[in-house]
Amino acid sequence: MRNIDWIAVDWGTTRLRVWGLSKQGEILTHNSSDKGMNTLQSEEYEQVLIEHIEDWLDKDRTIAVLACGMLGSKQGWIETHYETAPCIGSKQLVQAPVSNQGFKVYICPGVKQLSPADIMRGEETQILGFLTDNPGYSGVICLPGTHCKWVQVTAGVIEYFQTYMTGELYALLSQHSILRHCVAKNGWHTSAFKKAVASAIDSPATIYGQLFSLRAESILNGLSAEVARARLSGYMIGLELCAAQQYWKDKEVMVIGEQQISIRYMEAFRSLKIKSEHFNSDELTIKGLTSIYHQILGQ
Amino acid sequence: MRNIDWIAVDWGTTRLRVWGLSKQGEILTHNSSDKGMNTLQSEEYEQVLIEHIEDWLDKDRTIAVLACGMLGSKQGWIETHYETAPCIGSKQLVQAPVSNQGFKVYICPGVKQLSPADIMRGEETQILGFLTDNPGYSGVICLPGTHCKWVQVTAGVIEYFQTYMTGELYALLSQHSILRHCVAKNGWHTSAFKKAVASAIDSPATIYGQLFSLRAESILNGLSAEVARARLSGYMIGLELCAAQQYWKDKEVMVIGEQQISIRYMEAFRSLKIKSEHFNSDELTIKGLTSIYHQILGQ
Repeated sequence: MRNIDWIAVDWGTTRLRVWGLSKQGEILTHNSSDKGMNTLQSEEYEQVLIEHIEDWLDKDRTIAVLACGMLGSKQGWIETHYETAPCIGSKQLVQAPVSNQGFKVYICPGVKQLSPADIMRGEETQILGFLTDNPGYSGVICLPGTHCKWVQVTAGVIEYFQTYMTGELYALLSQHSILRHCVAKNGWHTSAFKKAVASAIDSPATIYGQLFSLRAESILNGLSAEVARARLSGYMIGLELCAAQQYWKDKEVMVIGEQQISIRYMEAFRSLKIKSEHFNSDELTIKGLTSIYHQILGQ
Repeated sequence: MRNIDWIAVDWGTTRLRVWGLSKQGEILTHNSSDKGMNTLQSEEYEQVLIEHIEDWLDKDRTIAVLACGMLGSKQGWIETHYETAPCIGSKQLVQAPVSNQGFKVYICPGVKQLSPADIMRGEETQILGFLTDNPGYSGVICLPGTHCKWVQVTAGVIEYFQTYMTGELYALLSQHSILRHCVAKNGWHTSAFKKAVASAIDSPATIYGQLFSLRAESILNGLSAEVARARLSGYMIGLELCAAQQYWKDKEVMVIGEQQISIRYMEAFRSLKIKSEHFNSDELTIKGLTSIYHQILGQ
């Protein structure tokens, strides 16, 4: 595909997403799979990448591939550094070793915070994408997912942040614990969710004793699996919100994430009378990578 | 083995333990395996039981097998009822269907609590064993394990109780979450454990944000895997203790459990200046089943 100028890649723990883009960052084609970094050894990355982009390569040129996400972690393709917050994001890219002549791979660094210790890989690029449209922004960004990040951005700079394992905890409890027998995979109950959020914020310690109750109530009182699902989700998000109060209390929250999980957070915010606005994480990843492509690769 | 009068069985989620006993409850022989109820279908129980006790059977008699634990649950051999707290424990046994003439299997019911909903299967028999030596006991019993139970016993009766998923949460986080990369399987750090217990009791909400810090500190500051293990264990037990304060505050706690996990709880109690005493769960299970054998089977 001759009109593709460069390739953007978001290589996360469980998903690989690639986009063929014009110089201006328009999506001309895209591809994705579940070949996330948790399924790959370091030496497999090049071949897997080729499988996803080979139709876009030409013999007579070398195309730039700009990637962000967990592929830059210790367990990924090649370990890249972290820039230290407060910072804007990617300044120095790391090239991954490839034998194919058709492309060069540049990986964005992550962002670290020294005290309290914290790290991100991928979210910094989404934030950069957000800042492209909102230069000099000051405010709070919440990025829900497996490991939800709360980020204070001040004058266009990532000032400080904190990670919560909410998505992973929910997945472990609903799919791998004794609660898997009583929590539905689908279905929802809005008022059960809202009540659970409120009770977790109100009294986080007691929630620890409420988890097994989902199982007991299912057995003894016929608690429906959909209500159990909404309640468990509400407990987890509520515990996170209780712990992250300094970020959202009396503030407006920008939510960057996939639709399905972002909806839950925004539902929780509404019930707390917190204003929030949603941005699609894929779109902002592409915007962020486009900004880096222009600024660092100088094209 | 002609001198075996009856057989006691503790069939839990992950373990099967059988004991050949005299009429008075002396252990004459025993056997165990990892054929727990989570590995078995209902129709497999009889055969698995035979494999563990066949050397103890005679052609010319039918021996009584008295069992407690998760084999009586919905996912077990045959679903037995729950007695309702406040109660003493097993009054009515349920016979499991067997085709072998050499034995009859009697299963103890569990105990349920209607509000707040809670259930136990197996722990009630350990408590009965404790009460055999301490008739009319009033006080608090803590039974650590996959699902830790806190039980208020009054005048020899299970009055009320609550279940915490502490052991299962620790196993999920240390073996299946992102933290598996930074939490050791062995090794210990007493002061890290005690500090983690104290901070969880002091500020349970913030612990939710401390979990991912174990990973970040491991990557950025070289946090040792042994300290991470002790800290994660301390967070989990501390959260449980924070939620269960009504049970232990200004009380003496009887701890019934396996050695390894009970030691951690007693370490936490010592650091909180709570008096505690340990009782071996296997011994109390046998004592409890012996008491039922005499009272209900009338032998």
